[in-house]
Amino acid sequence: MPMIRECIVTTLNAEGRVHIAPLGLIAEHLGAERLGAERLGAEGERWIIAPFRPSATLDNLRASPFAVANFTDDVLIFAGCLTGKRDWPTEPATAVPGAVLVGTLAHAELEVAHIEEDEQRPRFHCRIVHQASHAPFKGLNRGQGAVIEAAILASRLHMLSRDKIERELAYLQIAVEKTGGEREHEAWRLLVEKIEDHFKHAPGSPEC
Amino acid sequence: MPMIRECIVTTLNAEGRVHIAPLGLIAEHLGAERLGAERLGAEGERWIIAPFRPSATLDNLRASPFAVANFTDDVLIFAGCLTGKRDWPTEPATAVPGAVLVGTLAHAELEVAHIEEDEQRPRFHCRIVHQASHAPFKGLNRGQGAVIEAAILASRLHMLSRDKIERELAYLQIAVEKTGGEREHEAWRLLVEKIEDHFKHAPGSPEC
Repeated sequence: MPMIRECIVTTLNAEGRVHIAPLGLIAEHLGAERLGAERLGAEGERWIIAPFRPSATLDNLRASPFAVANFTDDVLIFAGCLTGKRDWPTEPATAVPGAVLVGTLAHAELEVAHIEEDEQRPRFHCRIVHQASHAPFKGLNRGQGAVIEAAILASRLHMLSRDKIERELAYLQIAVEKTGGEREHEAWRLLVEKIEDHFKHAPGSPEC
Repeated sequence: MPMIRECIVTTLNAEGRVHIAPLGLIAEHLGAERLGAERLGAEGERWIIAPFRPSATLDNLRASPFAVANFTDDVLIFAGCLTGKRDWPTEPATAVPGAVLVGTLAHAELEVAHIEEDEQRPRFHCRIVHQASHAPFKGLNRGQGAVIEAAILASRLHMLSRDKIERELAYLQIAVEKTGGEREHEAWRLLVEKIEDHFKHAPGSPEC
């Protein structure tokens, strides 16, 4: 049961330009024997980044084998990245060539340890070079969870039926309305707009 | 749009015994004028605790007007509290008579500032007396979000139809299976067991 954490991952391209992408990172706990030999990262933990082909994150990891996993609960950044706003402020990382998202609650600076090649999603196994906490966690929020689910729907519009998407959005919306703050509402609005736009222009849609 | 954070709230009864309950706390931002007059809590923020009548949290807040909001992402504690396991380890709070959950990522120590009476859910407006961060946030997890939704279903079994509950559980289960770690899976198991148990003994159920 590897845990997947929804993060904002930053990588650098060959020219050193920052790329920001929301990605689910897979937690990897090394076994005791391997730990003895390697002793890498806090608690023997690694993160696996598995970007789809093709993607800027994939190209960047090959050009510069470092990344920063930003652990933020600001779902507006997730929604923004999926709807065209990727220029969130960052500052240089401490121990790797990379960029830390301003305002993130915590982050981990990663170095690629080895690559498992795959036709669809190569897996970059990363060791933790440095990590830091910047602000206290404020508690789980149902609206944030709902926005993350909507973000996943919005990123898979070509794979899912309109009926399924609309049904799930109707369900998720309740949590946003009941428990979300301003950023959750704004994130929701951006994602729903993107989804509606997609169906407005999709072939076979009644509006076409 | 007041934000609601799902917390583990600890209160003390008249004898000083700790009560642990999962509750959604309402964030309250005081206006600038009131802030000038009162200057209470970090960032002028308050938390409103609105426990249902009757409940131990409600009785305790009347007996001892303090509480600790524990901001944890350990969903097993939420599921445990809803399924009979309430004896999670705590340690004394710093600035109020109260108990801090061991292992919480962060916490806020609260004092009741005033009470808004209500037939169903009185609202205890609390100022923040002290807060602390204990461990870095590790990122959002879809499985945790799904467990919280299932916990809410499990706490409202008498108000919801079996059909609605089963439909929502089938949807939520996917995120737990795909992204949850061991604690999310165990929390899910506890909640589903409780829900199945309820319907097994509910009048009108085919098994009865």
